[in-house]
Amino acid sequence: MRRFAVEKAKKLVSGALLSSRSCPSSPFCSSSPATVAAAAAAATATMAPTTSFPVTMESINPKVLKCEYAVRGEIVAHAQRLQQELQTKPGSHPFDEILYCNIGNPQSLGQLPVTFFREVLSLCDHPSLLDKSETHALFSSDAIARAWQIMDVIPGRATGAYSHSQGVKGLRDAIAEGIAVRDGFPANAEDIFLTDGASPAVHMMMQLLISCEKDGILCPIPQYPLYSASIALHGGSLVPYYLDEATGWGLETAELKKQLEEARSRGITVRALVVINPGNPTGQVLAEENQREVVEFCKKEGLVLLADEVYQENIYVDNKKFNSFKKIARSMGYGDEDLSLVSFQSVSKGYYGECGKRGGYMEITGFSPDVRDQIYKVASVNLCSNISGQILASLVMNPPKVGDESYESYMAERDGILSSLARRAKALEDAFNSLEGVTCNKAEGAMYLFPCLCLPQKAIEVAKAVNTPPDAFYARRLLEATGIVVVPGSGFGQVPGTWHFRCTILPQEDKIPAIISRLKAFHEAFMEEFRD
Amino acid sequence: MRRFAVEKAKKLVSGALLSSRSCPSSPFCSSSPATVAAAAAAATATMAPTTSFPVTMESINPKVLKCEYAVRGEIVAHAQRLQQELQTKPGSHPFDEILYCNIGNPQSLGQLPVTFFREVLSLCDHPSLLDKSETHALFSSDAIARAWQIMDVIPGRATGAYSHSQGVKGLRDAIAEGIAVRDGFPANAEDIFLTDGASPAVHMMMQLLISCEKDGILCPIPQYPLYSASIALHGGSLVPYYLDEATGWGLETAELKKQLEEARSRGITVRALVVINPGNPTGQVLAEENQREVVEFCKKEGLVLLADEVYQENIYVDNKKFNSFKKIARSMGYGDEDLSLVSFQSVSKGYYGECGKRGGYMEITGFSPDVRDQIYKVASVNLCSNISGQILASLVMNPPKVGDESYESYMAERDGILSSLARRAKALEDAFNSLEGVTCNKAEGAMYLFPCLCLPQKAIEVAKAVNTPPDAFYARRLLEATGIVVVPGSGFGQVPGTWHFRCTILPQEDKIPAIISRLKAFHEAFMEEFRD
Repeated sequence: MRRFAVEKAKKLVSGALLSSRSCPSSPFCSSSPATVAAAAAAATATMAPTTSFPVTMESINPKVLKCEYAVRGEIVAHAQRLQQELQTKPGSHPFDEILYCNIGNPQSLGQLPVTFFREVLSLCDHPSLLDKSETHALFSSDAIARAWQIMDVIPGRATGAYSHSQGVKGLRDAIAEGIAVRDGFPANAEDIFLTDGASPAVHMMMQLLISCEKDGILCPIPQYPLYSASIALHGGSLVPYYLDEATGWGLETAELKKQLEEARSRGITVRALVVINPGNPTGQVLAEENQREVVEFCKKEGLVLLADEVYQENIYVDNKKFNSFKKIARSMGYGDEDLSLVSFQSVSKGYYGECGKRGGYMEITGFSPDVRDQIYKVASVNLCSNISGQILASLVMNPPKVGDESYESYMAERDGILSSLARRAKALEDAFNSLEGVTCNKAEGAMYLFPCLCLPQKAIEVAKAVNTPPDAFYARRLLEATGIVVVPGSGFGQVPGTWHFRCTILPQEDKIPAIISRLKAFHEAFMEEFRD
Repeated sequence: MRRFAVEKAKKLVSGALLSSRSCPSSPFCSSSPATVAAAAAAATATMAPTTSFPVTMESINPKVLKCEYAVRGEIVAHAQRLQQELQTKPGSHPFDEILYCNIGNPQSLGQLPVTFFREVLSLCDHPSLLDKSETHALFSSDAIARAWQIMDVIPGRATGAYSHSQGVKGLRDAIAEGIAVRDGFPANAEDIFLTDGASPAVHMMMQLLISCEKDGILCPIPQYPLYSASIALHGGSLVPYYLDEATGWGLETAELKKQLEEARSRGITVRALVVINPGNPTGQVLAEENQREVVEFCKKEGLVLLADEVYQENIYVDNKKFNSFKKIARSMGYGDEDLSLVSFQSVSKGYYGECGKRGGYMEITGFSPDVRDQIYKVASVNLCSNISGQILASLVMNPPKVGDESYESYMAERDGILSSLARRAKALEDAFNSLEGVTCNKAEGAMYLFPCLCLPQKAIEVAKAVNTPPDAFYARRLLEATGIVVVPGSGFGQVPGTWHFRCTILPQEDKIPAIISRLKAFHEAFMEEFRD
C-alpha cells in the first residue's frame, strides 16, 4: 500500500486520473494494458522475488491498485512502526508518544462519549436490564424511557435481528423527525438509508452512478480521499474543481462551470457534484447564498448533488451556521422533482465522535421510484447496517430535550466538547500562522486545519531527490522529530506547486500548548536546515 | 428491483451470465451496448412516463441492474405488502401473520440472544458501569471480567474510536486463539480482517479478484445469492458447478474440473472457488475426504479457495462434524505458501444468530505481502468495522469456559438452541418428504431445507403463461394461502428443469406443527388444482 501513495498523489494533482480520453478497448480488462503494466511495474519495483502465490499484483483488479487513501496511508504506517519501537525501546525517539492528528477520531485522543447515548445503547444491547429494579440505580430515567421507546419500534424487540435493509422503520421515523426539526421542512423515513458510517453510503452512490471511466464526478480539491478512492474503485473519473484558498476555501460556481465544460469537452459525462460542508480537509462553512448557487448549478446542469454533511454539528464561528442543502433547496421552492440530492450524515463526527459505532445514513430525494428500487436492491445484498449504529443515528438526530432528566448534563457535555474544539481550532490556527512561510485559513467548522507551506527551494529539491512530494517529506520529518502525525496535502489534492498538510484539532486541550511548542521548534529547525 | 428477479433467475440457470465470450469493446461502458440496451428495455417495460430526474434506469451502472438478491427479492416485497394489509385490514387474508422463512434471521422469529454475550456488549457500551458496585447485581462476574479484559486491549479503552482497519489487535488475538483451539493448528492475528458481517468480506475479495468479465469465480449451484450478486456488481463471470442432489448435494471434483475446463475453453480466467460448508441453501456438511479433494484441486489449479464457513456451529447430525478448510489443508501438510485460502465467519449464524450486530471476519492465508497490503488498503477506505461486532466476534470464538460463572447457563442456552434447531430441521424435512411430488435432502447443518418440487405440467404452464418461474409461482401461492415466505430455487440456481424452494428451519418449535399443517393443506390443494 505504501509505495502507491506517492504515485497517486502525483496523479491526483496532475489530473492524470482523467487522462484516458475513452474507455479501454482491451478485450481483457477495463483498464488499458499500458496503465495496468505501469501500475504493476510500480508495484513490483520493491517486491520480493516471485512466489508461487496464485494472486499477484499483476492479476488483481487494477482499480484496486489505483485506489489510494492517504488518511491511513504511508505516513500512518510509519507512525505505527515508530510506536512499536517506542514500546520495545523506550527512549529510542525524541518523543514519548505518537500523536495521531491524521484522522478525525476524537475518542482515540481521549474525548469521552456522551453519557446519555451510551446509556441507551447499553440498555438496548441487554434489554432484560429494562425489567430489573436495580437498573434505576445505574441509568437515568430518560435513558430507560428512550430504550423502551426504541424496543417498541424494533419488530419483536429483537436488537439481534437483521432489520429492513434501509434500517428499522421506527428509527428512520425518528431521524426524519430530527431532520424536519433541523430544516423546518418535512422529511420522509422512506428516503433514509441507514449505513455503517457514511462511507458505505458514498460507495453505494458511486456504484450506482459510475459505469466506466466516461462517468465523471465533480469533487472539490482539496477533497476527503474517500471520494477519490471510491471513484477509483468504481472505475470513474474524478473531475476536480479547486476551492479558492485566498478566499477561505471559497467554492466558486464559475470554477464549477469551467471544470464541467472542460470535462464534457473530453467526452466525460459528469453525473454528480460532491460538496463537503463544513469542509474536509478545509474547514470552511458555506454561506447560504453560495449554497443556493450550487443548487441552481446542479439543477441547471442535471447533476446529482452529493452533500457530505457529516460535520453539520461542528461549527466554531458565530457568523456562520450550518444549512443543509435540502433546506436550501426547499427554501428556494424546489421540491423532490427539481433536484436529485443525497445528504450524508454520520455518528462519527459532531460533538459525539462515535467513530467505532459505525452509524450513519443518507437521505435520498429527487430519484425516480425505479432508481430507488435499485438503490434498495444494492443495500439489501448486505442485508442491513448494524443496529447499535442505527440506534445511535436516531439518538444524535433526537438528543434529550428540555425537561428530560439528562438534558442538563447532556448539554454540558455537548457544549463542553464543542467549545473546547473551537478553542483548540483557534490555538492551532494561530500557531500555524505564526510559523515562517506558513499560512492557515480559519477552521470555521469540521475537525481540521489545512495550512499552506511555503517551503525553501532546497527542501523541495531534497524531497524530489528521494522521490517524495515535498509536503510528504515535511510530514515525515515532523513525525520523526515530534511524534505528531499529519497527512500531506498531496493525499487530498492541491493546486500544483502548493504544499499543505491536514492536522486535526482533536488532541486534548491540555496537550495543545506542548504540541504547539514541538511544532514551532521543529519548524524553525527545518527552515534553518533548508534555508536557501 | 422486482422485475429483474425473473430475468436473472433465467440467466443464472441458463448460464447467460457467462455468454459474453470477450470483454466489451465499447468505448463507453464495461457492458456491451446490446446488454445494456436489453437490460434498460426490460427495466423500462413497466416504467411510468419519463420524468425529469437526471438519474435514469438507462444511465445507471448496468452492473447494478444485473445484480439480483432473491433472499430479499420480489416474494419478500410481496410479503411485506400483505403484512401491511393484515395490519390495516385484519382478516383480509386467510392467515394471521406472515412467517418469514426466507432468511436466516433467528432472532426475528423469537430466538433469544445468548445472555453472556449481551452482558459483555452492554458493559463495553457503557464502560463506566464497570466502576460501580451496583453493576454486580445485574451482571455475571465473568461478564464483568471479560469486559475488563476487552477494555484493556482497546487502545485508550475507547470503544467509540475507529480501530485498526483490520480490527482491534487484541480482539484479533482472541479470535486467532479461538481458531487455533478449534483447528489444532496455529492462527495469526495478522491474517484476520474483522468486517461488518461476512458480506463485506466477500465483496472485498471479489473486488480484489475480479477485473472484468473474463475473470471467473467457480460457485456452487445452488448458491447463496450474495455470491452471484457480488460477482455481478464487480463485473465478473459466475462459473457454476452443480452440487449433486441425488447424493445429498455432493460436491464432485470431476464436476469442478469439467466446469473449470469448459470456462477456460471460453477464455475465462478462473480466479477462485467458492465452497459453502455447511451448505447454503443445501444444508450438507462436507466429509473430510471431500474437503481434501477440494484443497488438492485448488492447489493444482492455482485457485483461491473462498470458504464460506459461517455455519460452522450449525451441525445437526452425529455422523458429521465441521472441519475448517484451513485445518484440512494444514493436516495435509500444506502451509501458507501452498494454498491461498480465505475463511469467512459471521456472528449472524451459529447458535448465537446475532444478525443485527454485523460482526464477522475473514482469515486470509497464502497471499503475498504486497497483495495483503492491497487488501488492507481497501479495508482502510472504510476505516473499520463496528466495534460491538468486533467484540462479539471475539466472544463467539472464545465463549465461557468450564469454571466460569456463566458456563453452565451459557451451555444450557447454546445446547437448547442447537438441539431445538436439529429437531425443527428433522420435523420440516419429514413434512416435506411426506408431500406428493416433493423430495427433500436432510439438513445436516446450516439453517435451511431446499426441497425439490415435482410440479404438475399444468402448474408449469400456468406459471409460464404469467412469465414466472414455476417455483416462484408456487412460492407466491404458498405465501398468499398460508403467510409462509420461502425463496424460490430460481434465486439460488438449480439444474434446468428442476424446481425448488429454500425454507429456513427457524420458526419457533411450538409453531412448527401448525406450520406443517398449513404447508400440507396448501400443497394438497395446489396439486389438486393443477393435477394433469
